[in-house]
Formats: sequence, C-alpha cells, structure tokens
Amino acid sequence: MNENLVIQTLLNRRSIRKFKSKEVSKVDMESIVNAGQRAPTGTMFQAYSFINISDPRIKEEIIQIILTFASKKEGRWWQVMETAPLWILICVDFARQEKIFEILNLDIELGPLDKLVRGLIDANLAAENMVIAAESLGLGSCFVGYPKRISGELVESLGLPESVFPFLLLCIGYPDEDPSIKTRLPINAVLHENGYQAPSEKLLKSYYESSYGSLDKVGSSWGFNFPLEATRWREQKLRKDIKSMGLLNG
Amino acid sequence: MNENLVIQTLLNRRSIRKFKSKEVSKVDMESIVNAGQRAPTGTMFQAYSFINISDPRIKEEIIQIILTFASKKEGRWWQVMETAPLWILICVDFARQEKIFEILNLDIELGPLDKLVRGLIDANLAAENMVIAAESLGLGSCFVGYPKRISGELVESLGLPESVFPFLLLCIGYPDEDPSIKTRLPINAVLHENGYQAPSEKLLKSYYESSYGSLDKVGSSWGFNFPLEATRWREQKLRKDIKSMGLLNG
Repeated sequence: MNENLVIQTLLNRRSIRKFKSKEVSKVDMESIVNAGQRAPTGTMFQAYSFINISDPRIKEEIIQIILTFASKKEGRWWQVMETAPLWILICVDFARQEKIFEILNLDIELGPLDKLVRGLIDANLAAENMVIAAESLGLGSCFVGYPKRISGELVESLGLPESVFPFLLLCIGYPDEDPSIKTRLPINAVLHENGYQAPSEKLLKSYYESSYGSLDKVGSSWGFNFPLEATRWREQKLRKDIKSMGLLNG
Repeated sequence: MNENLVIQTLLNRRSIRKFKSKEVSKVDMESIVNAGQRAPTGTMFQAYSFINISDPRIKEEIIQIILTFASKKEGRWWQVMETAPLWILICVDFARQEKIFEILNLDIELGPLDKLVRGLIDANLAAENMVIAAESLGLGSCFVGYPKRISGELVESLGLPESVFPFLLLCIGYPDEDPSIKTRLPINAVLHENGYQAPSEKLLKSYYESSYGSLDKVGSSWGFNFPLEATRWREQKLRKDIKSMGLLNG
C-alpha cells in the first residue's frame, strides 16, 4: 500500500473524544474552514454553512436539548461536547443560493429533495476536508451526530433561515487522550467490481467479532442505541424537521 | 493562514476533467479506497459501498443513459467520463448493515429517511478522503453528479440490492490538463458565529462577478442547467428512485 504523508494522515486519524482546555487559535480555525471550502462542490453552489458556536449559553442550551432524550452515558457525546473548545455546526445551506438566484433574476427553483441530497454531498465533502486539516495541525476532532435529531430546535435557537439544515457538529481541540485506531471492514466488503458482491456471513461475523470482542457486545451496543420505538419517533421527527426547512416534499 | 503539506494538498486540489490514458494501478486504487474507509462513520455503520466500474460495456451503457437527457456539451461530464481510466461509483449502502442486524438477530430497523441521511454523511466523508488520497498520489479526480439522476437505472444495470443508492461517480486518473484553481465564496459568507449572518447582496454580487467574469455568465450557465420543467421532472424521478430503494417513506 502507498503511504505518503497525506495518506498517513488519513489512515492515522481517529476520533478524539476528550480535549485539553487549550483554545484553538482563530488562524487555525480559519485554515480549517478554508480547507473545507476547497472541497469539490456541485455547480459551484457551495451549499453549506458552518456555524462556530462559541457562546457558552448556546452551548449549554444545545447540551440540555440533547439531554432531554439522551443520557450522558450513551456513547461519549457529552464528554466530547463538554471538553471541545471549538464547535463547528455543519449545515446544508440553500438559503444563500436562493438569494443569488433572486439577485440574478433567475427563475430557478430546485426540488426540495434534490436540494437536500446536493446539500448533504457538498457539506460532507467540505466537513471531511476540515477534519483532515485539523488533524494536520495537531488538533483532534469528533463528529457528534445529534444535531440531525434536534435540527428543528437548532433552527429556532440559532435563528436559521429556511433551506438551512444543521445536521452534524464537528468538535475540535487539542487531544487529551490517545485512543487506538478502530478497525474497518475488510476492503472486499465495501469495494465491488461492475456489480454488487455481497460479503459472506462468515466474513461479516468474523469482522464484528474481532472488532467488538464478541458478537453479543455489538448487539447490546446497537440495541441500546436503536430501540424500535425511539427509531420510529426519530424518523417522524427527522421528516417533520427537514420538511419544515423546505428540504423535503409534502 | 497555516499551510502545512496536508493543507496545501487540500487547498491546491482542483477537479481534473481530462485524463491521460495511463491506468491507475491496483495498489493505488486500494490505497485510495482504504483511505476512504478511514473517514469517520456514525455508529461504525460504514454505510457505503464503492463500485469500481471497469467493464467498458457497462461504462458505455451508463454514458448512453446519461445521453438520453444531457448533451456532450453540457458541462464537461462526457470528457471526464470518457477519458478517466478509473471509475468509482459512490453508493449509500444499508443493505450490508441490515444483513448484520439479521445475522445478529437484532430487531433493529432504522427509518428510511434516517438511513438516507446517515448514508449520505458516511459515503461523502469517505469519498472526500478518496479525493485527497488520489491527489497525494499525483492523480487527479472529478466527481460526476449524474448518477443521482439515473440511480434507478444504475440499480437495475448493476444488480444492486435494496437500500443501496448510487449517487456520485468519482473519476480518477493522471491529469492531462492543468486548470487553475476556482475561487470560493469569501469565508465570511459561509462561516457564521452563534447564529446566521446572511451575506450582503453586494458581497455576493461581487464574488460571482469576479468568479464568472460577469453576472450574465452565471445566470446563463445556471439557467441552462436548471430549466424549470427539467427541475420538476428530476425531482419526481429522484423521489421515485430513492423510494424504490427503501430509503424514503411513502
């Protein structure tokens, strides 16, 4: 396998869930966001916004909203958010693009689902560049996925305009832990050729057994995170929230 | 701004739309996919699949499907696909994860929209790592967005199982052009603090004017790509296709 410095950075990245109190400098933050902006973007729409949440009252408010349905023990989200000095909320953003259409007197209106898909592509490509840039600056990072479950509340709290969907929080700071690198599926379980070659049961079992220690541990971890009723409720809320942003029909 | 080697790689990347005929080695392709797999993934689901399309007949079939609604002149997609020696189709994939739930006897069923959003996060974070890895190996790349518009046809052609959504084609090869780096919005148009600070009309106009030469050029380029009727038809098709994959309700 080829391993130049850039690829080494990509391969050695692991999520950091505990940070030192040392602040991230403004110049580093801007380097990170600039790197994010350099990711590919469809039709140059740059359909994202990044919100630096620095106000401790807003941080606390967001944590409190999450605590209405998640415990501090569930995963390690609470420690991540509590200790990370830099919070960057990643959003799909078509509000700016719609303003441009208006300014240019263009009668262009993208479909709501099309906007959601395009926005999620642009925003995540950019977000990963930010992760890699942070890594290269000696910083650590971790995504917290809860924002997609409280996106309606975030829109209200932060006064976001229509067509903006906050869905992922990128927490950044100086690492205060040195976790090992988590395994990934063998390449032949995710890479196919000219079609779809489903991985065998044996391969999947052996991967999860070795990654989690035992298959029971995988099951209990996932079962805890995804009880059926919660899943139904989450789906309804996600649908309602994204619809209210004008990014899904009906 | 901080510019180490990794950040320089991120900042200097530009899409390459014309490639030399030299093949990408298997070891390079595997380095690229491995780097993709190292991106963060929610709950370790790794909800993606990558399909290396190497069969010239399948390549031609896909180009022909796109040609039923797009001309060779529209953008430069045709040259990109025609000259790139390596095609990696990026897919949301929850089929594998559902098989794991079954193997582990877990009564877990994620909501269809939740799967779509999670899958698009995972797949795009991974795809961007692949772009950066390719870049570091002296290769160039370009995403082609058409697959999301023909995802139903691709599922059929490639025999993809339910819960797999092919949406983006990553074309990779040795650059046969040296395009300049395209501008991006000024950082204060995409980076907000503790809320949403909409960029002024003046700032937006001046950015698009300087990027495209004139505001008319932006307008005619976008107007060409997004005529209203096509937009409506695309939205309906996208909805129908994604629904048929079980990744959207109703």
